[in-house]
Amino acid sequence: MSRQQRAEIDAMVRQPRPEGPRSVEELRAGFRAMMAEMIVPAGIRTRTATLGGRPAVLVEPAGTPTAGTILYFHGGSYVVGSPETAMALTGNLVTRTGFRAFSLDYRLAPEHPFPAAIEDGLSAYRALLDSGEDPSAIAFAGDSAGGGLTATTCLAARGAGLPMPAAIVAFSPGLDMTRTGGSMDSKAGIDPFFTREGLEHTGAMYLAGQDPHQPMLSPAIRADLTGFPPMLLQAGTNEILLDDSTRMAARAREAGVDVILDVTADVPHVFQAFAGVLDEADEALERAALFLRQRIRSKGTAHTPAS
Amino acid sequence: MSRQQRAEIDAMVRQPRPEGPRSVEELRAGFRAMMAEMIVPAGIRTRTATLGGRPAVLVEPAGTPTAGTILYFHGGSYVVGSPETAMALTGNLVTRTGFRAFSLDYRLAPEHPFPAAIEDGLSAYRALLDSGEDPSAIAFAGDSAGGGLTATTCLAARGAGLPMPAAIVAFSPGLDMTRTGGSMDSKAGIDPFFTREGLEHTGAMYLAGQDPHQPMLSPAIRADLTGFPPMLLQAGTNEILLDDSTRMAARAREAGVDVILDVTADVPHVFQAFAGVLDEADEALERAALFLRQRIRSKGTAHTPAS
Repeated sequence: MSRQQRAEIDAMVRQPRPEGPRSVEELRAGFRAMMAEMIVPAGIRTRTATLGGRPAVLVEPAGTPTAGTILYFHGGSYVVGSPETAMALTGNLVTRTGFRAFSLDYRLAPEHPFPAAIEDGLSAYRALLDSGEDPSAIAFAGDSAGGGLTATTCLAARGAGLPMPAAIVAFSPGLDMTRTGGSMDSKAGIDPFFTREGLEHTGAMYLAGQDPHQPMLSPAIRADLTGFPPMLLQAGTNEILLDDSTRMAARAREAGVDVILDVTADVPHVFQAFAGVLDEADEALERAALFLRQRIRSKGTAHTPAS
Repeated sequence: MSRQQRAEIDAMVRQPRPEGPRSVEELRAGFRAMMAEMIVPAGIRTRTATLGGRPAVLVEPAGTPTAGTILYFHGGSYVVGSPETAMALTGNLVTRTGFRAFSLDYRLAPEHPFPAAIEDGLSAYRALLDSGEDPSAIAFAGDSAGGGLTATTCLAARGAGLPMPAAIVAFSPGLDMTRTGGSMDSKAGIDPFFTREGLEHTGAMYLAGQDPHQPMLSPAIRADLTGFPPMLLQAGTNEILLDDSTRMAARAREAGVDVILDVTADVPHVFQAFAGVLDEADEALERAALFLRQRIRSKGTAHTPAS
C-alpha cells in the first residue's frame, strides 16, 4: 500500500514542466500553485503577526495549546515561497505537538540576497527571546532552504551571544551552497524536482557573488556545530540534496551534538508535504512531533505572546 | 539536568574493572551482575517458552496486548548474556509498544561459535511464521551483538526464502567483525566498556577461525541490504562501535532501505539500558517504540500463541 503510494507520488511529481530558466515571478507563481495542492490539516488557527520587524504567520492549535514555540522557516531556494506555501508542514507540526508556530516571512533573493534571510531569522529569534520566551521552549524548524535557515540562524544566534534553541527539525535541508555532496551527481535524474542547473540558477540569486565556502552558506561542510541543540534531519533518497543531510549529521556527531538522520527511501524532496496522501509523510511528521515534544517538555507555563 | 545525568552515568561505568583477560565464566558472571543493576519496568509478565527448539522468554504487557511480536536478541559479544540480562531493554519495548516479545536464548560461543547464533535466530523466526504470525507483525530487535543478529538473521531469512519482518531496531549494534570502523580508533579511551583487545578476545571465540570479511559476520561492510525492512539504529558517541551503525545506515540508504540513524552524544554503548535513570535512555526507547508502532500498525487481530 505504502510502496504504491510512494510510486504514485513519484509519478505525480515527475509531470513535465516548462523548460529553461523562468523569471522570478514565474518561479514564485509556479511554486505557489504547486504547494497550494498540499493538504493543510484541520485544527489550526492562523493570524498575521510581526516578528523582529518582519511579517509572520502565527499558527496555533485550535484546542488548548501546549507551551512551546516553533520558529518555522519555509522552503523555496531563498527565492520563492512564503509562510502560506509551507502551511501544510507548519500546520502538521502544530497539530501534532500542540505547540504554536511562527512561520517567518523572511526576505527573499534576488531582491534581498544573503545574508538577509539569516538576519531576519536572527531578528525573529531575538524577538521571541525578548518577549520572554524561554529558549528551552523554542525549536527551529524548516524545509529545504528553510531547513538551511534552521542551522544558519543558530550559527548567527551563537555569534550574537544568544542561547541556543531547544531543537532543530529540518526537512530535506539545503546545507551546502558549494553543491559538493555525492548525491548531487548520484541522484541526478532520480530527483524529480531539482537539477544542479536549477539549483545554481536560484543559488546565484541568493549568493549574489559571495563565496559559498563559508559556514553561513555551507554549514554541512564548513560550520562548527559545537553547542548546537539536538537535531532531527529528515530526507528522501530521491533527492540530490540527500548528502546535505548525511554530511550535516556526520558533522554534528563529530561535534558531540545529538542528531537523528531519518531517511525514507524512494520519496522526493520535502515528501512530508504530502501528508494526508502519503503514509510516509504522516509517519515522518509523527516522528518529528515526538522529537519536538521530547525536547520541549511542557513545564505547565503559559505562553507569553510575542506580538 | 540531563547533561548531568549523562556525566553521572559516564562516571559510573568508568569504575575500575579487573585487568587482563578473564575466563568465560568470569565474563558471564560479571555481565550478569552488571546488567542486574538495570531497572526492569513494571507492567510486564514473563514466562519461559521454546522457540525453534531454543529456550526463550516470552515477555507480555500486563494489560491488553496490541497485536505485534518482537523477536529480541540480547547482547553480550556472542559469548555472554541471556534473555534475563536484556530484560530492562526488552521490557521497555514491550511496555511502550504493547507488543509481546520473545527474547531468544540463542547458543553462545565459544561452546557454539558462528553461525550457531544466527541459525538459532532463523529457527526462531521460522517458528513464529509457522505458528501463523504474519511477518508484517514481527519486528527484530536487539542490542550490541544482538543488534548484529537483527541484521544477520534477516540475511539468513532472505537466503532461506522467508519473507522479511516488518522492522529492525538495533541498539548499538555490532555489525563489523573486521573492526575497521573509524570509531574503533577515534573513540578508543572514550568508550568506557570496550577496547579493541577486549572485542578481539570475545570475537575470536565467536569467529573460531572464520574469515570476518563476509556478510554474515560484517553486514555493515559486506551485506547486500536490498529488500531489508525499515531500520532504526541507535548508538552513542562514546563507543568504538559507533561506526558500525553509521556505515550500516549508509549502506541501507544506498540499498533503498528506510533507515533512521539516531545518535545520542556523550552516552555509552547500549545506553538505553539505563532507562529510569538517564532521560536519554527513556527518550530513545520512546522513539524506538513509536518506530515499531508505525511499522506494525494494529490490524485488530489477536495473537496466535507461538508456543
